[in-house]
Amino acid sequence: MARQAQITDSTKLYEAILAKQSYLCVGLDPDLSKIPECFGDGAKAVEKFCNSVIDATKHVAVAYKPNLAFFETLGAEGWDILSRVIDHIPSECLAIADAKRGDIGNTATKYAEAILRNLGADSITVSPYMGVDSVTPFTSIENKWTVLLALTSNPGAEDFEFHGNPPLFERVLSKAQEWGTINNLMFVVGATRPEMLVRVRELVPDSFLLIPGVGAQGGTIEVVAKHGLTSKCGLLVNSSRGIIYAGSSESTISEAMNKSRSAAEEIAAKMAITLKE
Amino acid sequence: MARQAQITDSTKLYEAILAKQSYLCVGLDPDLSKIPECFGDGAKAVEKFCNSVIDATKHVAVAYKPNLAFFETLGAEGWDILSRVIDHIPSECLAIADAKRGDIGNTATKYAEAILRNLGADSITVSPYMGVDSVTPFTSIENKWTVLLALTSNPGAEDFEFHGNPPLFERVLSKAQEWGTINNLMFVVGATRPEMLVRVRELVPDSFLLIPGVGAQGGTIEVVAKHGLTSKCGLLVNSSRGIIYAGSSESTISEAMNKSRSAAEEIAAKMAITLKE
Repeated sequence: MARQAQITDSTKLYEAILAKQSYLCVGLDPDLSKIPECFGDGAKAVEKFCNSVIDATKHVAVAYKPNLAFFETLGAEGWDILSRVIDHIPSECLAIADAKRGDIGNTATKYAEAILRNLGADSITVSPYMGVDSVTPFTSIENKWTVLLALTSNPGAEDFEFHGNPPLFERVLSKAQEWGTINNLMFVVGATRPEMLVRVRELVPDSFLLIPGVGAQGGTIEVVAKHGLTSKCGLLVNSSRGIIYAGSSESTISEAMNKSRSAAEEIAAKMAITLKE
Repeated sequence: MARQAQITDSTKLYEAILAKQSYLCVGLDPDLSKIPECFGDGAKAVEKFCNSVIDATKHVAVAYKPNLAFFETLGAEGWDILSRVIDHIPSECLAIADAKRGDIGNTATKYAEAILRNLGADSITVSPYMGVDSVTPFTSIENKWTVLLALTSNPGAEDFEFHGNPPLFERVLSKAQEWGTINNLMFVVGATRPEMLVRVRELVPDSFLLIPGVGAQGGTIEVVAKHGLTSKCGLLVNSSRGIIYAGSSESTISEAMNKSRSAAEEIAAKMAITLKE
């Protein structure tokens, strides 16, 4: 394992946030059809693109979230690239493998081995559907984080996540606290439903939340911060497309990455204001 | 894509079952710590083991279900091996990639591309948690099957799958029928809860069910058949460990695979009886 992660508990994550005055997570969803042409073609372009985005934004990002689907479409080569991209994430940032795995105990143990140990990610996103034995093989690994889906930002969230009374996502938030602590378990809560953050904070007052859905999907930093911030921040807000493809129409890597840098800095500047309020 | 699947609808699946008088799915969970020593060490042993199991059981198996976690632990090489193992599955059998993916639309589309198109699997297991846009990118692919988690066989199923009234797994069964047909969508229902099969059949009378949990996990063919069989079978019953590791203590590949063959034939013989009743 090449990376030696530094962010191994919520205090260290808060310190990293204070140091950069930012709680920005940059989502790495490298889609060959959207990567600026100046990066070239094929798998090599994916690697160069991801690493360039990391270099251009690491002064304001506290986490990176490579999305495994985009690497898996490249087959075995994609898996190698993913491994090198994770290695390229600075050790003072959290490397979150966005894998959304969820399976019975012995299989979950293998996923944890594949992604947290072999790939060296610091953290993995996990689906709660199958319950305790699909989650604890991840939370039981020392110094690693599990990011459990609770309330997602997509239209389909309406289908099952609000099912029952209390709604399923609330049941997940309540129950899962038996399986981890605020130092190794955080929750996905979509920015597209900021009004729900108030209820989420009643259930998990101190847990870190990973918030997707800002930017392209419509949520804003200000509203998320208003309802979600804790005394120790407690938020990682993810932006993918709005940052990584900000320079899609530029003709050189340098110009494209300047656009990505500016996009990340703009979001981080908004975050800095909310941290001072 | 090397394989050209033949089982592209439920009629063809039923015909394959009738031809072999079996509805056996063999789960390929190749764990290096359990593969008989005679297969050797490392990734090469995994490939040889999986292909040998396929060769030894294909006269009685209508489906194979490679579990992606066990291949992912081998990194890029594992992804290549998975691809070759899927190629090795006879085209008259269903190749089900047990991946349990579940993510928003654009990501689900990438998983579908990676697993159904590039790896050439005929089918993929999918988690329903995130709802419609996490499922339809799979069901919209022609001639491929989606296997959606409903009621699983593990202890953690108690945590969320029974949440609400009706319980979540019933809501999944009802809702998901809007997203696919009996010709491209089946459901996972664990054999460890056979009494629930009666209720499942009220909700999805004609859908194929993929049933794990027979053998090592405690369910029996007879009880599953009694409550789950339809006039066109409607069942795939999976066995993994009970078949693939049946010859764990044997000293030659031939002897080990004879044990796996016998274990598969024994299960298939029980299935044949239920098909005649």
